[in-house]
Amino acid sequence: MIKTKPTGPIPSGYAAIDGELAVGGQKASVLVSENGSPLFVYSRGCLDARMAQLRTAMPDGLDLHYAMKANPFQPVLRHMVGLADGIDIASGGELTMALEAGATPDHVSFAGPGKRDAELEQAIQAGVTINLESPSECERALRIGAACDKRPRLAIRVNPDFDLKGSGMKMGGGAKPFGMDIELVAPTVKRILDAGANWRGFHIFAGSQALNADAIIETQAQTLDLAARLAAAIGQSPEHVNLGGGFGIPYFPGDVSLDVDKVGKALSKQLAQLPEILSSTRFAIELGRYLVGEAGVYLTEIVDRKESQGQTFLVTDGGLHHQLAASGNFGTVVRRNYPAAIASRFEEEAVETASIVGCLCTPLDRLSDNAAMPKADVGDIVVIFCAGAYGASASPANFLGQGPAKEILVD
Amino acid sequence: MIKTKPTGPIPSGYAAIDGELAVGGQKASVLVSENGSPLFVYSRGCLDARMAQLRTAMPDGLDLHYAMKANPFQPVLRHMVGLADGIDIASGGELTMALEAGATPDHVSFAGPGKRDAELEQAIQAGVTINLESPSECERALRIGAACDKRPRLAIRVNPDFDLKGSGMKMGGGAKPFGMDIELVAPTVKRILDAGANWRGFHIFAGSQALNADAIIETQAQTLDLAARLAAAIGQSPEHVNLGGGFGIPYFPGDVSLDVDKVGKALSKQLAQLPEILSSTRFAIELGRYLVGEAGVYLTEIVDRKESQGQTFLVTDGGLHHQLAASGNFGTVVRRNYPAAIASRFEEEAVETASIVGCLCTPLDRLSDNAAMPKADVGDIVVIFCAGAYGASASPANFLGQGPAKEILVD
Repeated sequence: MIKTKPTGPIPSGYAAIDGELAVGGQKASVLVSENGSPLFVYSRGCLDARMAQLRTAMPDGLDLHYAMKANPFQPVLRHMVGLADGIDIASGGELTMALEAGATPDHVSFAGPGKRDAELEQAIQAGVTINLESPSECERALRIGAACDKRPRLAIRVNPDFDLKGSGMKMGGGAKPFGMDIELVAPTVKRILDAGANWRGFHIFAGSQALNADAIIETQAQTLDLAARLAAAIGQSPEHVNLGGGFGIPYFPGDVSLDVDKVGKALSKQLAQLPEILSSTRFAIELGRYLVGEAGVYLTEIVDRKESQGQTFLVTDGGLHHQLAASGNFGTVVRRNYPAAIASRFEEEAVETASIVGCLCTPLDRLSDNAAMPKADVGDIVVIFCAGAYGASASPANFLGQGPAKEILVD
Repeated sequence: MIKTKPTGPIPSGYAAIDGELAVGGQKASVLVSENGSPLFVYSRGCLDARMAQLRTAMPDGLDLHYAMKANPFQPVLRHMVGLADGIDIASGGELTMALEAGATPDHVSFAGPGKRDAELEQAIQAGVTINLESPSECERALRIGAACDKRPRLAIRVNPDFDLKGSGMKMGGGAKPFGMDIELVAPTVKRILDAGANWRGFHIFAGSQALNADAIIETQAQTLDLAARLAAAIGQSPEHVNLGGGFGIPYFPGDVSLDVDKVGKALSKQLAQLPEILSSTRFAIELGRYLVGEAGVYLTEIVDRKESQGQTFLVTDGGLHHQLAASGNFGTVVRRNYPAAIASRFEEEAVETASIVGCLCTPLDRLSDNAAMPKADVGDIVVIFCAGAYGASASPANFLGQGPAKEILVD
């Protein structure tokens, strides 16, 4: 007897038409027959709904930034440029994509520990804000700004002296390649001001992928306190403070959605009690996965159904080359099942235990391990949910000569 | 005090010129200044030496196949087509690449659990051998062969009832998506013969990345025994048996190179004692990583040197988007350091403990963790060894808008 393993929770907002999963009002089988398999489908409706929910929950006047690394697909990015108050980029390549998608340079900010000189120059020429990761990067930016006769817009990325509890990835609270240790911040701001550059403020990112509202509330309070301490040390108000993000989405069995209303209420209260030195500062939060992750699905057709020693395998034409994180091979120690289902039998009861594997000739290529499924066969379509973030762009698309999957944005 | 962590062993065949690592007689700084950074450099000399060593060690008449998934870079593939007796592919995309590189179809075989109809047709039209993974794939191949009036060349991929002890990835010894369970083999061969298709033999792959010669010897003996049992059940000799591979390379501290001479001697003895039914069979082993892994290096320039809370970080312009496995994020549970060094100071003594990180804005992007290093700074070049296999093609090149690294084949 095979032990059935649970799958993660299916995000809200997905429903069936004629028993099939539908996205943007189109059935999975229609989407695949028109666009091929495997296929990423992103839903404009889900993107809009998530942003609307967040606007309602968050304090008025708080800027909501989109960290485009989560999903740089041009139609999604263009849509997010319209919805968000700013775009956060992590490379010169992303800068090019953001500008092409219609982002205005003074709403773009650039973080990342290994910025090349050419990328700094590209950013300074474009007029976007650079989040400086070290004093030496500051010197390079000032030198390049002088050489091209442009006044750089520079913020300080701070390595905070705390982390985001329960976050999937810690970005603070220890020795880190990201940002500057606290004692370096005031001297570097002084250097920026003395050089006549445009000091924009702080970028403070303590962690990501947290589902616990209290942990995020505590981190936001610590971040505001740190910003106030740094401003006091500098003796000048920062124009802008990016409070980071950290809002997670449920991927795994037992995960529960973040209570953003609770986070928003607490942040409103915190922003109403700011010390004088931050009273004219504009605040932002920076979200990637939270804005787009649940708005995307990955559809892949079953090309073989086989039994081996009593276990059932549904072999698909997709795999880890598009879904590295879902296969359990990206930043996870213990493999657990993402939310997955048979899209073409979305309303059928589970009657068997089956594993969904990809087409790659490696045991790493497993999309769902021994989950309860309706009986599916060749031609049925598998759906992996939570595919809107870190899917297409964070997977080795060319592995085993496969190539990328098509991506589409639907209503 | 930071605890220094060991790095994996540097493969043999690399030396310094003027104190710098040189590949194919060219210094790292010259390679980077002419080709840019980051850069994969593969050495024809290392490829030749490895194949020559293997020819000497292995029994006469044993075919040595190259599994191109390990490194499909066209100049490397073309070179390997000239050196190897066969090319093993895992997708229609790889078939196209193999033929472009000059492989002759009757020396190509195609394995992989999720072959699409279009890929089966492409393979049948080209005349390459298809390693069938299931009876239903067999039916599809026969149907497609009939439809396009071609006699398919079909082998059976067997799911062996044993695994390769100590292998990095087990491909047998349990319920698997790969190959057919043993009891399905004889009926499927009968079906192939009855349909008038060309039955080529068996493909039996029990695991990969093993460093223990005795484990490989035992697995080869079990594989030959299984092939004999299957042939007896079928009542016909297989023309060809692919014994799989499994030869690993040392990546991590404490790893020791596989004793291929020992493996070759044992295999010679086994092949001299074959039962009658295998006496006219031709045997092959299929190697990817072992043939190309140590022949490649990844060079990446340091763009920042920073201290955080007493730790030193060397930030490079490369990262996990080219070196997913070296970052510890692909098929490994515990992160350990690949062999890495400062190429531009290859002969200098270690004087400090430093971590080498990539340019990506994620804590996953660590190429070497707290290793002993000579003092390196901006402009120095980092080398990651064992980058010839599963580097460029098995990493998410477009992550964070970065794009692929250039690859070159040198003398």
